[in-house]
Amino acid sequence: MTAGGATDDVETSALVRETREAAGVVARMLADPGRIAPLAATLAARRPRLAAICGRGSSGHAGVHLRYLIEARLGIPVTMTAPSVVTALGRSLDLAGALFVVISQSGRSPDLVAATRAARAAGALTVAIVNDDASPAAEAAEWVLPIAAGQERSVAATKTVVGAMALGALLVGRVGEDEALRAALGRLPERLEHACALDWSPAGAALAGASAAFVTGRGYGFPAAREIALKAMEVLRLPVLAYSAAELPHGPRAAVGPRTPVLALRVGDETAAAVDALVGALDAAGLPPHLAGGPATRLPWIGDDHPVTDAIAFLAPAYMMIARTARAMGYDPDAPPHLEKVTETL
Amino acid sequence: MTAGGATDDVETSALVRETREAAGVVARMLADPGRIAPLAATLAARRPRLAAICGRGSSGHAGVHLRYLIEARLGIPVTMTAPSVVTALGRSLDLAGALFVVISQSGRSPDLVAATRAARAAGALTVAIVNDDASPAAEAAEWVLPIAAGQERSVAATKTVVGAMALGALLVGRVGEDEALRAALGRLPERLEHACALDWSPAGAALAGASAAFVTGRGYGFPAAREIALKAMEVLRLPVLAYSAAELPHGPRAAVGPRTPVLALRVGDETAAAVDALVGALDAAGLPPHLAGGPATRLPWIGDDHPVTDAIAFLAPAYMMIARTARAMGYDPDAPPHLEKVTETL
Repeated sequence: MTAGGATDDVETSALVRETREAAGVVARMLADPGRIAPLAATLAARRPRLAAICGRGSSGHAGVHLRYLIEARLGIPVTMTAPSVVTALGRSLDLAGALFVVISQSGRSPDLVAATRAARAAGALTVAIVNDDASPAAEAAEWVLPIAAGQERSVAATKTVVGAMALGALLVGRVGEDEALRAALGRLPERLEHACALDWSPAGAALAGASAAFVTGRGYGFPAAREIALKAMEVLRLPVLAYSAAELPHGPRAAVGPRTPVLALRVGDETAAAVDALVGALDAAGLPPHLAGGPATRLPWIGDDHPVTDAIAFLAPAYMMIARTARAMGYDPDAPPHLEKVTETL
Repeated sequence: MTAGGATDDVETSALVRETREAAGVVARMLADPGRIAPLAATLAARRPRLAAICGRGSSGHAGVHLRYLIEARLGIPVTMTAPSVVTALGRSLDLAGALFVVISQSGRSPDLVAATRAARAAGALTVAIVNDDASPAAEAAEWVLPIAAGQERSVAATKTVVGAMALGALLVGRVGEDEALRAALGRLPERLEHACALDWSPAGAALAGASAAFVTGRGYGFPAAREIALKAMEVLRLPVLAYSAAELPHGPRAAVGPRTPVLALRVGDETAAAVDALVGALDAAGLPPHLAGGPATRLPWIGDDHPVTDAIAFLAPAYMMIARTARAMGYDPDAPPHLEKVTETL
């Protein structure tokens, strides 16, 4: 790490700057939704019986968010495709007539490109949610939804994750003619801006002194929990486990102790009861979690709006907290070890 | 803990005894495959375009094993159904004509029973892989494949997990007329017996001194990795993370250090290259993993046979090692905290 200069001030780190840019990414997407309308019309007409979503790491978390949207709001079963089946085991799936969505910041992971080509050849309606719309994944897909977040300099993705989640929600909101969701997306840029100003340093201080940590949520809160866990693991070099609030109280609970703080994300829908029950149980055990969301939020929160967009908004204060905690721990938030911007998995 | 007596001798713990019983469970299944043949004939005739698999915890890991089998050997896309969508969000999926498989030791989890009923009402071909074939999940499904493992006294499931994985492999081997897989299943009981005698104490010693741990594998090795991670977390009260060998080298690698040992499972198919690459990278970083499987195995191993059954056989020495490590750490292997035999999630 250099003394002084841009990288020494966390507020000017790419991780913080790009988290702040996420609001603008969503605002531009709302102003110019590109091919969302014709794609939504095509999907509404074809009514695919199955959707397959492909993505790795942070893009995979955006994929899980989209998975819940498609299953819960359109009633279409979703398979999160395992690239090891498509590439390593060499067997192609029967995806004729399915919707296939590849999510990738770079659009250059060879296994994702191969999976997209195979799905298109099998007769799937292929969609690429990518930041680089001149990438091989974009070329391989019939439909391209560009995240249009501009260049992402931070190795740990932020604005592209927010953008990919918002793009999926925009698409499903349009297919399902879901006015409440579309209205909530309209409020998301301003809420993201406010969320960036929230101070989650109590959670950061707990992470800085932890031997490991847990992040939990349910429903739309679960992919957000997975994303925050992975980002914290990458940037803070700490084992961070993500479990659904329905799973954590069972086996994994045995590993929760004073040195393994829990961050709980609560979205305001039918899944909130599971989070509330978990928070109550951990409180009773003298291990109170850092709770975000809902009327009894413990971390600063902008108030609940819509479960789909609240799950996205949680990412902003979490990313900011992780960047600041990295600096407090002596790490460069922009240079997590062992990460490349393009994941070359074959 | 009582001094002396059965619970003080780990070799007579239910966890160890029931792991040893797994070989007999598979042998009985081979001798009396129940309704596997007519179900396989029905599946071969109907050729479902989609399969949905539902299970939690260890049964969910058996579900991921079955998922790879169905995708890689039958070419049918599989969705691992998220019970939160079916129950909490209250939206039913379009599963008409799909294969629906519920996996549950007890067959009594209300959300799984509800999901099975909903799938059957939607027109899916429903199959219950259950140990208690008089349970509500068995009653809810059209087809029942009993694990027939006898009563499981250990709270942490062992023989029922091995049995559920073997049952799925038997079914897919029959549907796909896969003689190599069926022959490998015929060898599995004897191999499980030998695998129970393997001494994985070097991995156990590492876990006993760890702040957290990682278990990794790819393809069929990945559900085994997830199962071993969850079991170690439950019984050893240690945060244990499972990552695919394709994912671990990227973000999660940042959290791997001297106090977070890695157990790597290598099955002998196209996925082995990813495990070998990861092992090489960790060796080069001075963090050599505990590798099981393949010609360069470091933990004692019975030699590779078939990737599908080797993934199952890894569980035997892992369960034995976890039980013994629990005792070494002063824990009762049969009484992990916070676990119930029936998971009541709504």
